[in-house]
Amino acid sequence: MNRKVILAETPNGIPQSRHFSIVESSSPELPTDGFLVENQFLSVEPAMRGWLSDKGNYSKPILVGDVMRAIAAGRIVASNNPKYPVGTAVSGWFGWQDVAAATEAEVIRVIKEDDLPLSLSLGILGLTGMAAYLGLTCAGAPVAGDTVVVSTAAGAVGSVVGQVAKLLGCRAVGITGSEAKVRLCLDEFGYDAAFSYRDDDLAARTAEACRGGVNVYFDNTAGSISDAVRAHLAIGARIVICGTASVSSWSPPPTGPRIERDLLTKRARMQGFLAFDHRDKYESTVEQLALWIRQGKLAWREDVLSGIESCPDAIAGLYRGENLGKRVIRLR
Amino acid sequence: MNRKVILAETPNGIPQSRHFSIVESSSPELPTDGFLVENQFLSVEPAMRGWLSDKGNYSKPILVGDVMRAIAAGRIVASNNPKYPVGTAVSGWFGWQDVAAATEAEVIRVIKEDDLPLSLSLGILGLTGMAAYLGLTCAGAPVAGDTVVVSTAAGAVGSVVGQVAKLLGCRAVGITGSEAKVRLCLDEFGYDAAFSYRDDDLAARTAEACRGGVNVYFDNTAGSISDAVRAHLAIGARIVICGTASVSSWSPPPTGPRIERDLLTKRARMQGFLAFDHRDKYESTVEQLALWIRQGKLAWREDVLSGIESCPDAIAGLYRGENLGKRVIRLR
Repeated sequence: MNRKVILAETPNGIPQSRHFSIVESSSPELPTDGFLVENQFLSVEPAMRGWLSDKGNYSKPILVGDVMRAIAAGRIVASNNPKYPVGTAVSGWFGWQDVAAATEAEVIRVIKEDDLPLSLSLGILGLTGMAAYLGLTCAGAPVAGDTVVVSTAAGAVGSVVGQVAKLLGCRAVGITGSEAKVRLCLDEFGYDAAFSYRDDDLAARTAEACRGGVNVYFDNTAGSISDAVRAHLAIGARIVICGTASVSSWSPPPTGPRIERDLLTKRARMQGFLAFDHRDKYESTVEQLALWIRQGKLAWREDVLSGIESCPDAIAGLYRGENLGKRVIRLR
Repeated sequence: MNRKVILAETPNGIPQSRHFSIVESSSPELPTDGFLVENQFLSVEPAMRGWLSDKGNYSKPILVGDVMRAIAAGRIVASNNPKYPVGTAVSGWFGWQDVAAATEAEVIRVIKEDDLPLSLSLGILGLTGMAAYLGLTCAGAPVAGDTVVVSTAAGAVGSVVGQVAKLLGCRAVGITGSEAKVRLCLDEFGYDAAFSYRDDDLAARTAEACRGGVNVYFDNTAGSISDAVRAHLAIGARIVICGTASVSSWSPPPTGPRIERDLLTKRARMQGFLAFDHRDKYESTVEQLALWIRQGKLAWREDVLSGIESCPDAIAGLYRGENLGKRVIRLR
């Protein structure tokens, strides 16, 4: 039998349990040019909110009745494609289900890092790590000595951004959502300074932590947190828009202070970044990140839920801020 | 005697006549390491609003009692610096006055284009042309075939942007403020399409003129005009923030729809640009623009006011949209 999480109702805003249902069906047929993947880990991403939106996004909306679109990691258990023999570890667009019928088009990577946990290919060695490393280096363009501010600094993406910034010789300042996460930023991820956006005077905390101005702002939240950071940009600052977690709905977009004048007077750059656009850099990025992991230079946290029953509430939980680290669901 | 326009009161918002007064004094003394410049043309810029603001900007605020900061063009009439002999034509930070005591530090350029009108060194061959050419090419990064949208399309900067975009093989779409300026865009500056932001359905006009999406938006206005353009960005679009003419005051900043999601889903880049940062490119840019002018490939308009008495109301007049082309004041 194959258990699948399907979309029961298109959410407006953050997807909740009631928007999904779990159904059982027989195991899928082996495609003539493809293979069957037995999923071991399913990924849960903040971006799923956007994928589920029926408003403009960067991907086709998921329709009611569809298996929830998700990246998963597992092993090939049956194959008609000699490039993907049985036993191969792969990550790809295999959906929230036990077993996926797939072809090469759905594969993101063949996983070669046998010495590292398979679940990392959904996190620091997956699109999460790609977004952090490539967003920071390509769009953020940090140089040694820069002050790099990260929002959701203890999160799956943010914690990698902060650590890579340090490895590149920058000063890393983290903004996060609780005192526990502030401690994690300082003690585990090596930020030079960290504070909570729930602090009374976010603007003053930012000013104090970024006296020479913010050279790079890696933005995972948008909203009022970003407004506070933008007030302290250095000349020539780069803002990387990687996520908008603090804004619960974009249809219609919420209002905020117009930013053109900040960008003009600071000659600053603000850029949306999606790791999907940079597939040609995936392999070299995984190599770099895996090397740092083996050298003990990169820490990570995982938030592992058990069983497919965890799926329906898992996205809402991310937006409640209940996870520490990349959220994945272990199936077996 | 030397007539000078001094700041009488710091404006909040658009500077009006009452914020200035004209005073007479004796001719300035020749600096021991400098020269005296007899101004022939004074420049009037939308950016003067920002220079006069006591809120954060990219330059030191002008204080009450100071001669109004301005670029001017004229000739050296007395000199203690052998690099700047009497008779040299120069543009520089000589202020709204008849005669300026200056040193090399205030000079922007020695004007070598004797075959072209001196006033052009305040316009298409001055910072206006630099902002247009360098903003478009460096920050806008257009490639042939791109759709380039320009706000204040018939203006001093905008009209150069539109024409350079065409010379680089792009499609140019102009947004401007009147039917007369729409005609100017189409008939004189060669835009492929142009319309007024006062049209009922700005969003629909933009959509119709930019069916493949907007690749480059050269933004001189900010505000609701930019909101309409931003709704039609192509993937990978570049927005150049060169001015914010449609917003009358930035303290406090007005509110508008938050833009992070647009930038993220379109992987778009938005960048503030000041020509001042690119002095190393001034000479090569003037050479290119002067060449196109001599070849008859670049049109320009000037709006020439007469006499220093025109100064106090000249900035407000720009914001009333009464000029067609770069506004300068002829003194002699």
